[in-house]
Amino acid sequence: MASRQLTDAQLELLRGKNFAAVTTLRADGSPQTSIVWIDTDGERVIFNSTTWRAKTRDLRRDPRVSVLVLDANDPYRYFVVEGEAELDLEGADAHIHELSRRFRGKEFHAPHDRVIVRVNARRIYDYRDD
Amino acid sequence: MASRQLTDAQLELLRGKNFAAVTTLRADGSPQTSIVWIDTDGERVIFNSTTWRAKTRDLRRDPRVSVLVLDANDPYRYFVVEGEAELDLEGADAHIHELSRRFRGKEFHAPHDRVIVRVNARRIYDYRDD
Repeated sequence: MASRQLTDAQLELLRGKNFAAVTTLRADGSPQTSIVWIDTDGERVIFNSTTWRAKTRDLRRDPRVSVLVLDANDPYRYFVVEGEAELDLEGADAHIHELSRRFRGKEFHAPHDRVIVRVNARRIYDYRDD
Repeated sequence: MASRQLTDAQLELLRGKNFAAVTTLRADGSPQTSIVWIDTDGERVIFNSTTWRAKTRDLRRDPRVSVLVLDANDPYRYFVVEGEAELDLEGADAHIHELSRRFRGKEFHAPHDRVIVRVNARRIYDYRDD
């Protein structure tokens, strides 16, 4: 599936020290939400998880996901990507170091069992309240 | 359904100028997430929406909801309430004024068609990263 295109402003948020609320679906279909460091591969929203976390297990069962990207500098500015996740183990341990350096200024303490989640966007909503 | 009890620290976050990512389920079961001003009635997580918003329509169809409450002062501190929503029109227009005064220091510009959403918590997860 082709992913809907992100704007330059959205890509800029994804490259900053910003967080996102990621929601996946439990086995019973109910939503479960957690916070992640957010990133982009230049085209899509991506984040890093572990192979054993609930959200990864959820996405293996049902790839549907919503990702609400928060602007850490403005609580009234955010955007939401809804779509389907692709999981990729390749390069995921290196990627968590990269994120940790950006967010914490140091390597990650436990760079193993990681997975990169790429979101193919079906819908993108952008909010900027006045 | 009885709601699981919130801690004093959680109630304090709910009484501050904090935001939450609310996720409801679309008709096809996929998650949709948006940001709200968050509040409490002293026992439960509550927020205010409009009768016509997607999340209100979703909750009328399927009351399952996740609410991730962010600490505006610490991106690594948050808690998540999962449960079922109850909608209440009574007092909802007055309640949006109350929230607007807390968050914006003034009355709300459009205090009509409002609904109070109360979340009966089935599960509560609390996160405080080091």
